[in-house]
Order: sequence, then structure tokens, then C-alpha cells
Amino acid sequence: MAEDKLPTRAEDFAEWYNKLVLKSDLADYAPVRGCMVVKPYGWTLWENMQAGLDRRFKETGHVNAAFPMLIPMSFFEKEKEHVEGFAPELAVVTHGGGQKLEEPLVVRPTSETIVGYMYSKWIKSYRDLPVLINQWGSVLRWELRTKLFLRTAEFYWQEGHTAHATAEEAQEETFRMLDVYADFCINDAAIPVIKGVKTESEKFAGAMMSTTIEAMMQDKRALQSGTSHYFGENFAKAFDIQFLDQTNTLQYCHTTSWGFSTRVIGAIIMTHGDDQGLVMPPKLAPIQAVIVPIYKNDAEKSKVMEVADKVFFELKAAGIRTKMDDREEVTPGFKFNDWELRGVPVRIEIGPRDVEKGSVALARRDVPGREGKSFVPQAGLASTVSGLLSEIHSSMLKRASEFRDANIHDPRTYDELKEVVANGWAFSWWCGNATCEARVKEDTKATIRCIPLEGQPDGKGRCIVCGDEADKKVIFGRAY
Amino acid sequence: MAEDKLPTRAEDFAEWYNKLVLKSDLADYAPVRGCMVVKPYGWTLWENMQAGLDRRFKETGHVNAAFPMLIPMSFFEKEKEHVEGFAPELAVVTHGGGQKLEEPLVVRPTSETIVGYMYSKWIKSYRDLPVLINQWGSVLRWELRTKLFLRTAEFYWQEGHTAHATAEEAQEETFRMLDVYADFCINDAAIPVIKGVKTESEKFAGAMMSTTIEAMMQDKRALQSGTSHYFGENFAKAFDIQFLDQTNTLQYCHTTSWGFSTRVIGAIIMTHGDDQGLVMPPKLAPIQAVIVPIYKNDAEKSKVMEVADKVFFELKAAGIRTKMDDREEVTPGFKFNDWELRGVPVRIEIGPRDVEKGSVALARRDVPGREGKSFVPQAGLASTVSGLLSEIHSSMLKRASEFRDANIHDPRTYDELKEVVANGWAFSWWCGNATCEARVKEDTKATIRCIPLEGQPDGKGRCIVCGDEADKKVIFGRAY
Repeated sequence: MAEDKLPTRAEDFAEWYNKLVLKSDLADYAPVRGCMVVKPYGWTLWENMQAGLDRRFKETGHVNAAFPMLIPMSFFEKEKEHVEGFAPELAVVTHGGGQKLEEPLVVRPTSETIVGYMYSKWIKSYRDLPVLINQWGSVLRWELRTKLFLRTAEFYWQEGHTAHATAEEAQEETFRMLDVYADFCINDAAIPVIKGVKTESEKFAGAMMSTTIEAMMQDKRALQSGTSHYFGENFAKAFDIQFLDQTNTLQYCHTTSWGFSTRVIGAIIMTHGDDQGLVMPPKLAPIQAVIVPIYKNDAEKSKVMEVADKVFFELKAAGIRTKMDDREEVTPGFKFNDWELRGVPVRIEIGPRDVEKGSVALARRDVPGREGKSFVPQAGLASTVSGLLSEIHSSMLKRASEFRDANIHDPRTYDELKEVVANGWAFSWWCGNATCEARVKEDTKATIRCIPLEGQPDGKGRCIVCGDEADKKVIFGRAY
Repeated sequence: MAEDKLPTRAEDFAEWYNKLVLKSDLADYAPVRGCMVVKPYGWTLWENMQAGLDRRFKETGHVNAAFPMLIPMSFFEKEKEHVEGFAPELAVVTHGGGQKLEEPLVVRPTSETIVGYMYSKWIKSYRDLPVLINQWGSVLRWELRTKLFLRTAEFYWQEGHTAHATAEEAQEETFRMLDVYADFCINDAAIPVIKGVKTESEKFAGAMMSTTIEAMMQDKRALQSGTSHYFGENFAKAFDIQFLDQTNTLQYCHTTSWGFSTRVIGAIIMTHGDDQGLVMPPKLAPIQAVIVPIYKNDAEKSKVMEVADKVFFELKAAGIRTKMDDREEVTPGFKFNDWELRGVPVRIEIGPRDVEKGSVALARRDVPGREGKSFVPQAGLASTVSGLLSEIHSSMLKRASEFRDANIHDPRTYDELKEVVANGWAFSWWCGNATCEARVKEDTKATIRCIPLEGQPDGKGRCIVCGDEADKKVIFGRAY
């Protein structure tokens, strides 16, 4: 079984990731190149993520709808930058019902075009605005180098598409949804993301402005975890999305789109996981607490199971996602490893002595070994576990924030920058010139992840590459 | 605007349906032939349907997962009947990333093949069984004649796929999920469906047994509203889904699949709708209660809105999906028609006199006019509205059941059968012979909708077509 063993992160981070995804039953490779199967454990995590995001979308006034997965090829040609960006990645349906199609259809890589077409039919007057629609689904991009969750041909996501009367409103929306993503990552996934704006060369095909949240993985590479785009009138002009304003004048809409995908499952794994396996953020964990009863004989079993069952129903009733592991064919030690691999935040051990003492043993997944273990009374256990889950969330977020901050550097020279981005991020002045950006990429493979919206110093500085005057500091880092 | 007017059901039922779907904002035609856009109002209905079904799936031990939308063409060829059934309807991806693919990929029309392939990798031992997985998503079948919700190239659905150690278990599962569908239709959608088994000629491509729930629309045509299939070892043999049993002997699994789609939105429309528009079943209605404030001047407005707002928050807090229609640019009369068109079960009117009296007017959507209107105290309104929603559900179910029962006939002769199926269903003895079944279809376009599981008389009878001895009575009817 040696080849099946999980390497440590230090030994081989990439292999640790790949094996962990498979061994923890999150996903599997599909028989179609570049595609994945999201297994029930992984999909339940995604369902919890969807619920957290969907609630926030609805609180900010959005509604869901569904647009077709097939889009006429000609739609892509209406927005020049958009087609240039996506043409190399398209999967094309040429035959349907046994016949060659007159016009080939594209399996959607993203839906701005077809949504834009429908909006042009639906939007007539300022009274119809804003249109705030989101869609949950999957999209297909023909990727050559794939990695489960991080980069697959088909992936699952949501894409919001909104239309507004003015540039200001559309830009507000763009930032509002970026805030929603950041709020979700920080408060539900315990991932401390940095909000920022993409440079010209890194922005979405067809956008006037792309914003992003960027997270640092434990190998210090960046993972773009959600993007929100402002299109100005680009798509409105390409698809003729016009409205009559209050003065009865025909105007183009200003549109946005924003997307968040299953690749954030990869971010969760690589932000929190350890050498024993996954460490699930409590708010999203498919199983928040697992009960492992411990006994040696039938007499002990009947006593222990009575308490275990009671605890199980109490926790369930309190809304804690609880699993009873009453398998007979494996040992408690096997179960401990199994649930550690799957990252369950809290393990509850109940043995004969716990029954006598009216206590249980709680083990925190985020703090391995004795240090993370405590013995607590059975009375009030639901509230104890709830409290512990909150504490675990805060502790995970704190640890990830400290790790990130410790690995963001402020190099003084370009040579220093080249050094630090080999194993961390640089937060450095940049003149805004694409040549400097390209030079860093060529020299180090690091890109500008974003121009952070927060934490910018007052005043101006000197570009870390060319020394020219610079308005903003940016984050340079190697990315997934 | 005459061409935009909704015809009555009696004038033109098909046109009433088509226009109603568009006018009530449930869905729109997509720019891809045969595809639809499900608009926010329609999608919210589907989300409520999904929630009702998903809860039942989880209560019966199922978990969700996601399998790829693209399937290698060769997979379809592994099960002979399956490929024969689906080949004419496939959409084929021949190019990806600018290159011609070595093997064409099919956009899934249903996922038995790819799920079967994965199950053969995952299932090793009897300990791995049963596997009880469901998937929410969309599928694509190249339909020539399409109709919004009822028959579209792409449609939204769930497909459950399960694998079991024995035939008995798999058959139990098949009927369990049929029961789940029937329970949902009756108790959530207020559609009185009939559970039954499909004949050989009507069963799913590759199934040993197909079961169905059948509903009667107001034009007396049948709508198949959900199906649950038992495959025996067919797919297990085609995809090599085997397990070691307790005696260490290699056995084939017995598999099932079951699906329920957005076409049931069509069933909701055609079961309950009236000449004013939709009539939403209360448990699924996107909006369960709409508040229409009525006032003539600012002084009245401020009094009325104070009460309206209070009522709004009380109903929301009680979990009632409530909408406040405070539009200024349209009249209360316009609003009444608008929400009637959209089928909101309860309308709450609040005017100055209601404010004085401490009352509100409630109007039931299912009982138009004065008869459905009542004046109730503002105190305890949330519980009054909750009670009314329950009553509306029961009343809609009763009306639909009575309509259906009044249109199921028991013809004495074959000539009578031909007459009744032109405008209703026949519940008649059938000898089991496919020739008799085909003859009815040719003579009347009516098919055997199902062999009902309940309501079969004791003993035997004579086939309504040929007069031979018959074991079972079946339902003949024309179908969507």
C-alpha cells in the first residue's frame, strides 16, 4: 500500500494534494480527458458553499435563473476581446440528432454572450433595471493541463450577470459582489483573501475592469478565488442591450459579471490541510462532528451506545452536522485516522469510563494530538461543541492569516524581489507599465495577482522594476 | 395588444399554455433551437421543487454528486437497447480546443453509462453497497418538436443512480423512489398522480422495468411526471459493476435510476391554471402572499403603508414567502391582474378602511371573485394566512382529483374505448399483448400510460381490444 500513502506537504506538495483529493473521497478522475467526478463528500462540501453564497446573493437582491448550455458560435464573435480570449478553449457541438448542424454550437465556457442576447430582449426601460441574475451550473473550457478542482475542463460555478442604468451603479455592483466573495471566504471558509483589481494584462476577456480575491496556499502560491468584472458598455454594444431612460432617450446598459467556482475547494484543501489530510472549515464541513464509540465487549457496547445515541440526537437537534461511526469491522484507531483524513473538525470519543464519569473526549482536528484533546461533561455538549466549532474557525483563520502575512515580503530591490517571489509574495510599488509586469513574469514566473484595494500606503513610491514613479503597490506572486 | 392576450383554455388550450408561460415570466425561448431560458420566476419555482425533492432524497439515505456532462460515444454502445433508444437524440462534440477529437463526445442525454463506468471503479465489496447517489443538472436530447418545459432539447432534472447487492433491494428502491415522486406531487404540487408500471413498449431504453407517475392535464391528456427504472444486471454487465459478496463470490450489482424534471412545471401549469393565468400550489409558489396597499393620497398612504409594512414583516417572520407590491406607477387593479396571472395563492389588500377596522381583505387565487374573498383581523394574520395556504392546497388537490376521476372512463366495448380516449382516459382490461396495445395507438393515438399499482380489481377480465383473458387493468390515454 506504500504507493497509496499520502506524502507529507514538505516532501511533495503537488502529490500530497492530488492523493489527498482522491483518498479523502472528494473527487475522482472521469473517463473524459480533463474532467472530474465530484464524489458525494466533495459535492456536499460544494452544496454547503453554495448555500453560504446563495444566501448572500439573495440578501443583496439577486435571483437565480438558467440559461442554455449551448451557445451559437457566432455569439462569441460579437465581442472581439471575448472571442480572442475564449476561442482556444471552446468545445464545439457540430452534430445533433444525427445531422450536421448549420451553425456549430459551443458548450458554454461562460455565459456573457447568451445572457447579453436575452437581456437585449428583456430590457426596454429604466424601470426594468437593474437586472440582477445569477446562475448555478457548470461550464467547459478545453484545458490542456488539468488538476482536480483547480483546473478541469468542466467545472462547477455560479456566474452572476447584471445590467444597470449607469456606470457608477455597475461599478458599485462589481465591488459589492467582490465583498460578498471575500466575506464568504473569510467568514465561512476561513481563508483570508486579499481583494484587489487586476492589471490590464490579467483582466477577463472583454472587461473594462476585473476585480479578484487572492488567497495564499501553503506552498506560497496564489490562488485566484473569485472574480467580479465591470464591462462598461462593451457587451451592451455587442448585444444591443439598450433602455429608454427617464428622459425617453435610448442608452446602453452597463453590465457586470462575477464568478466563483469549485476551484475554491482546492483553496480550502491547500490553505488548511495538513500531513494527516484535510482540515475542513467548520462552517462548510460536510460532517462537523463525528462520534466514535469505544468498547471491548457487548456489556460495554450497550452502555456506550446508549450515551453515544443520546449525544448524536442532541447534536443533530442543535443543527450540528453529526455522524455516528458505529462500524463494527474497523478499530477506533482506524476510524480516528479515517476522519482525520477527511478533515472532520471535531471528534467525540465515548468509552466506558466516559459513561461512568458523565463526560466525553473531544479532539480538535486543527490541533492534532494531546494538545487538541479535552474532556468535557456530557451535559450541555451541543453548546460546548458549537462553541468549539466557532473557536476552530477563528483559530484556522488566524493561522492562515499569520502564515500569509509572514510570507508577504517588501523587497528593497528588483534582485530581492526575484528572490522572495520564489517562495512567497512581494508587495511592491509598480509604475503601471505592462513592460515591467512582463519582465517580472519572464524572470520569475510571478505575475501581478492584484492591485490591493486595502492596505495601500499613502503617497507614492518607485517601481520595484524600473524605478519610475509609482502610485500603487501590487502583489507579485506565482499562481495556480 | 390583442395578439398578446391570453386565450381561454376552451378557445385554444395549447396557445393558452404557450402564451401563459411567456406572459407569466416563467420561461422564454432561447436563441438555440429547442432550448429555453428559465427566467427567475420559473427558476424560483424549480428551486422550491428541488428543495422538496432533495429533502425527501436525503431522508431516504441518498447523497448528491456530480458526473461530467460529456460522455465518450463508445459508452453508449455498451448497452444495446440504450444506444438504440438514445442514438437519434444525441448532440455530439467533435472539436475541442481547436482540434478534432479522436473520439467524439456526447453531451449527456442521461447518465447511466458514465455513472456505471464510475461505479465499476468504486464498488469492490458488498460493504460498498448500496450506493445511493443523485445528481441535479441538465441533459440534452435533440428533440424536433419542442414546447417550453414539456419537451425541450436541454432540460433540467435530477437523476438518481443506485447499485444494490440483490434484485429485491433494487426493486424496492425503484418503488421507494416512485413513492417519493408521488408523495411530492400530491403533497407539494397538489397534482394527484397515478403510480404504475410501464408496458414493454413504453419502458426506458435498457430497463427491465420502468415505473411512472401519470397526471391528467385539464385538456385530459396525460403527462408522465417522473419515472423510476429497475435495470436488473443490464448496466452492471455492460459496465462490469461487480462486487465480492459475503462468501467472497463475484456478483453483478442490480442497478436503478430515477428522474424528475422541469416538465413537471408544465404539469403544474396545466393541472391548476385558469383563464386568468397560473394558479401556483401554495407549498411551491415563489410568492405565497402578495400585499397590495390601496390609497388615494399621501395621508392615506402613510397610514396604509404603516400597516402594510407591519403585516409584511410579520408574514416574513412566520416563514411565509411574501411580496410587497408598492409600485407607484400602476393601479391596484393592474396589480391584481398581474399577480393573478402569476398565480400567487393569497392576495392581501390593505386600504384606509382596513386600517381603521384593524382588518385586511384576503383574496384566494384558486377561488376567483367575491366567493374567494374574506375580511379578517390584522391580529394573528400570519397564522390566518398559513391556514389559508393549507386550505388552498387541499382544495386544489381535491379539485384536480375530482376532475381526473370524472374523466377516467370504463368503456364496455372497444368502440366505446375509442370514443372516450378522444377526450379522457380509459381504465380497461388488457391482455398484455403488444399487438392490442399497438392497435389502440394506431386507432386513437392513445397509449398505455401505465398499469396502475393501486386500484386494480380482484380477479380477471377480458381484454378491451381482443377479448382474451386479462390479468390487469391499464390506463389508456393520449399523452404529452
